[in-house]
Amino acid sequence: MSTNRLEAFSDGVLAVAITLLVLNVKVPPTSDHDLAHQLALRWPEYAAYATSFITIGIIWINHHAMIGRLRQADHAILFWNLLLLMSVGILPFATSLMATYLKQGHGSDHLAAAIYSGSFLVMSLMFSALNRQILLVKSDLLAETMPEQQRRAIFKRAVMGIAPYVIATALAWVSPYATLAICAAIAVYYALPRASGSP
Amino acid sequence: MSTNRLEAFSDGVLAVAITLLVLNVKVPPTSDHDLAHQLALRWPEYAAYATSFITIGIIWINHHAMIGRLRQADHAILFWNLLLLMSVGILPFATSLMATYLKQGHGSDHLAAAIYSGSFLVMSLMFSALNRQILLVKSDLLAETMPEQQRRAIFKRAVMGIAPYVIATALAWVSPYATLAICAAIAVYYALPRASGSP
Amino acid sequence: MSTNRLEAFSDGVLAVAITLLVLNVKVPPTSDHDLAHQLALRWPEYAAYATSFITIGIIWINHHAMIGRLRQADHAILFWNLLLLMSVGILPFATSLMATYLKQGHGSDHLAAAIYSGSFLVMSLMFSALNRQILLVKSDLLAETMPEQQRRAIFKRAVMGIAPYVIATALAWVSPYATLAICAAIAVYYALPRASGSP
Amino acid sequence: MSTNRLEAFSDGVLAVAITLLVLNVKVPPTSDHDLAHQLALRWPEYAAYATSFITIGIIWINHHAMIGRLRQADHAILFWNLLLLMSVGILPFATSLMATYLKQGHGSDHLAAAIYSGSFLVMSLMFSALNRQILLVKSDLLAETMPEQQRRAIFKRAVMGIAPYVIATALAWVSPYATLAICAAIAVYYALPRASGSP
Repeated sequence: MSTNRLEAFSDGVLAVAITLLVLNVKVPPTSDHDLAHQLALRWPEYAAYATSFITIGIIWINHHAMIGRLRQADHAILFWNLLLLMSVGILPFATSLMATYLKQGHGSDHLAAAIYSGSFLVMSLMFSALNRQILLVKSDLLAETMPEQQRRAIFKRAVMGIAPYVIATALAWVSPYATLAICAAIAVYYALPRASGSP
Repeated sequence: MSTNRLEAFSDGVLAVAITLLVLNVKVPPTSDHDLAHQLALRWPEYAAYATSFITIGIIWINHHAMIGRLRQADHAILFWNLLLLMSVGILPFATSLMATYLKQGHGSDHLAAAIYSGSFLVMSLMFSALNRQILLVKSDLLAETMPEQQRRAIFKRAVMGIAPYVIATALAWVSPYATLAICAAIAVYYALPRASGSP
Repeated sequence: MSTNRLEAFSDGVLAVAITLLVLNVKVPPTSDHDLAHQLALRWPEYAAYATSFITIGIIWINHHAMIGRLRQADHAILFWNLLLLMSVGILPFATSLMATYLKQGHGSDHLAAAIYSGSFLVMSLMFSALNRQILLVKSDLLAETMPEQQRRAIFKRAVMGIAPYVIATALAWVSPYATLAICAAIAVYYALPRASGSP
Repeated sequence: MSTNRLEAFSDGVLAVAITLLVLNVKVPPTSDHDLAHQLALRWPEYAAYATSFITIGIIWINHHAMIGRLRQADHAILFWNLLLLMSVGILPFATSLMATYLKQGHGSDHLAAAIYSGSFLVMSLMFSALNRQILLVKSDLLAETMPEQQRRAIFKRAVMGIAPYVIATALAWVSPYATLAICAAIAVYYALPRASGSP
């Protein structure tokens, strides 16, 4: 299979998922008379929205770089790509769960934060698994031959992206706010243009 | 009509349908204090989500292979493709119906499971009908000439994909859990990379 | 502007609109014990869903044929195309309105049916307006020179598609069921493969 | 990165956001017996829908023109493009907020209108920031060399699009209806085909 339609379908899923996030940003009920206060109370919705939006945006950028290395895709690559898309597709739910429980100051906000960060963790695991297929297992499908050392270096960089999410997920049991802050910081770190090269 | 825009539109519908599935994964109400327990009770939502997601993903892969054989499309092919897309477009509803009734342990969960599996059955019927148009009726539109025997073999394989859904739908009257298990097993079977060839 | 991105964006809007229709097909509440009866009562939802789905599908096919005639697009064509997309974008609302009021046997179902059919009417008016721009006003942007007679013939065919929706809208005041039946019949008429040529 | 996939992803997000707007156009409850009256009361929903739809459509047209000038994109351009997409992605929320509060004649409708218009303001700021990157900072990535004077002229035109939204947002504290009227007027002004050239 050519990579064109793989990219088109993946772009579609990522574009829909990133835009569906807005459905979790709710209009406060008009029964309350102070809209400004209501909106202020709902800050976790906006923080979770922005964090998830930028994270999916980064995944899209990295996905493009990853698939761009391929000459063509086989069934195993399509399989791992589908699992990656599923892990992104669930993010609107995880984002809504996090925002809802954090906003309510509910006792279960630790679990909600763990699931939120855990979803990003699964996403980065799937991303690494797909990268492993492309760079190490099916390297004969690469568009340009690449020395193994270089392939391992790119793969390692993807794997290293997993670690911060492990920390963020573990910290959920201490403070769900810390989890959200770390997830936001990861998003900003990867999003910011750097002096040299992309992530 | 060239197949490019047919693919683009079909990819769009499949990408939106697969991503809309997440809207059926609901955030448990914060009025209950045990989120973990609430999430555990909602396992049918997650099982139905994953099953439908992977099934639509497989349909996308197979759709690509099917359309990729065409040089161009005529009105009849567009018509059958539209019916296939409609059968996929309804899946978020069927998935939600199944999850809702299975979760509630409602007496009507047999019917809900039959509709869920029946939707996949209709989808695979439409897929076979479209394949029949392409391989047997309008074989002059194929990109490369293919011996009739080979065309019949590919068509037979598509038709054989219908049988498991007939069984799953019939079993809904015995156990809706069995129906869900079979649909999930079909999805995993087709999704898993195999030693030789794609489905 | 090249027509490629115009087609891509239009395809995207049409694909999202056609797939969002499913959000109006509601899962019956589990508080009622007879799901089969509940589903039967909701037949207007399914009829309106199928009618709108096929109608948008036909618009997509015709849109492709229309834009395919263009070499490039100017601002006026983009403007009329945007109005056409807006008239399609509102269809999930009109479909839901129609289904909700018809299902309830509500006295306002005449108005709801008039709005439903009226939305298709506006859509076909926008389609004709866009066709007029392309075929008669900006014919210098056509990919291939076409005699005026032929251009007028294609335009007339598009305009004739308006008439049935005028009748369906007028009949809403007699019977909303008649309106739905006519809209469904129009969809089936244009969708069915014909012996010779496409609509 | 080539601009093809940047355009495809951006088109996807814009197409989904523009089509999701319809979810904020609600079907009036059947408990009220006068549908015509109900629909008339809800005019802010339709006005806000049309205004946002056309505004996103214009952003799409201008986005195409802006990206079309690029030969390729770097990380900074992707970053600013992502922020632009986020500002568009939030519009369905801002539109719904505006419509809900204006409809209810709620005392907080001033704030709701300021947020609505403010969202367009942020969007035009992001658009100018992206334009600045492309035209002034990374002009070596342009497809065709362009004299600085011409680049500054295009950039100035984009920046000038910010002013009306500043006025509309400030006026929200006087009258939310004035804000909506100005936003609608801006949309119509940019959408209307002009005798010479596009905006």
